[in-house]
Amino acid sequence: MHPPELHFIGKVHSDIHTIKDAPKFHAESDRTGTLELYPQYLEGLKGIAAGQTIVVLCWFHQANREALQVYPRGDKSRGLHGVFVTRSPMRPNPIAISELKVLAVDGCRIEVSGLDILNGTPIVDIKNIPA
Amino acid sequence: MHPPELHFIGKVHSDIHTIKDAPKFHAESDRTGTLELYPQYLEGLKGIAAGQTIVVLCWFHQANREALQVYPRGDKSRGLHGVFVTRSPMRPNPIAISELKVLAVDGCRIEVSGLDILNGTPIVDIKNIPA
Repeated sequence: MHPPELHFIGKVHSDIHTIKDAPKFHAESDRTGTLELYPQYLEGLKGIAAGQTIVVLCWFHQANREALQVYPRGDKSRGLHGVFVTRSPMRPNPIAISELKVLAVDGCRIEVSGLDILNGTPIVDIKNIPA
Repeated sequence: MHPPELHFIGKVHSDIHTIKDAPKFHAESDRTGTLELYPQYLEGLKGIAAGQTIVVLCWFHQANREALQVYPRGDKSRGLHGVFVTRSPMRPNPIAISELKVLAVDGCRIEVSGLDILNGTPIVDIKNIPA
């Protein structure tokens, strides 16, 4: 099977402008920002509401896709780990998972808290949290 | 930015051969099976061990990428929902998230429990669970 191409469904608007400025995990973040879905995906949001927690998959467009080992959280004292046993953005398919709280919804714009994602990052999926 | 192409890093071996046969959520599954990583990704597994819980992203290669609304879990009485407020495999980028328990590791083969994924499904990423 030929490897598929991702379709970007939207992008993140946040005040996080450099990787150094980003919280390491969404659980450590109190940042708010906006997920902008492209208009052709609007009907996929039917039923979204303030107060929900959503799982957002983003594409770390600045990440190195070649590295297979990293120092977790940049801490060399812990030694090199395989990327698949870390949450490093570096990995063959740099897809990040964030759990975000929906603060408000206005058409294609979802205001969220808990943001840990660079401004301009492409969004590839949004899911609910399993019950 | 041109939409990126995914690189499949491996595939799932399970005894789930039809969509009808698949558990709806990994939390409902007691199935065991094997994740086979392709050899060129082996060093990305350094540090993986039995007992860990891993997050596995797969590409639902049989899913419809065009649908934006679905009946959650096939239940029409609940009405149509936007795919982004469900866990339906149907979505513009059909990436599934599963949390699986590592039972054993042998080179590129990871034996897991909790499997809810069709035999032959491509794997796109493996992450640890954030502490």
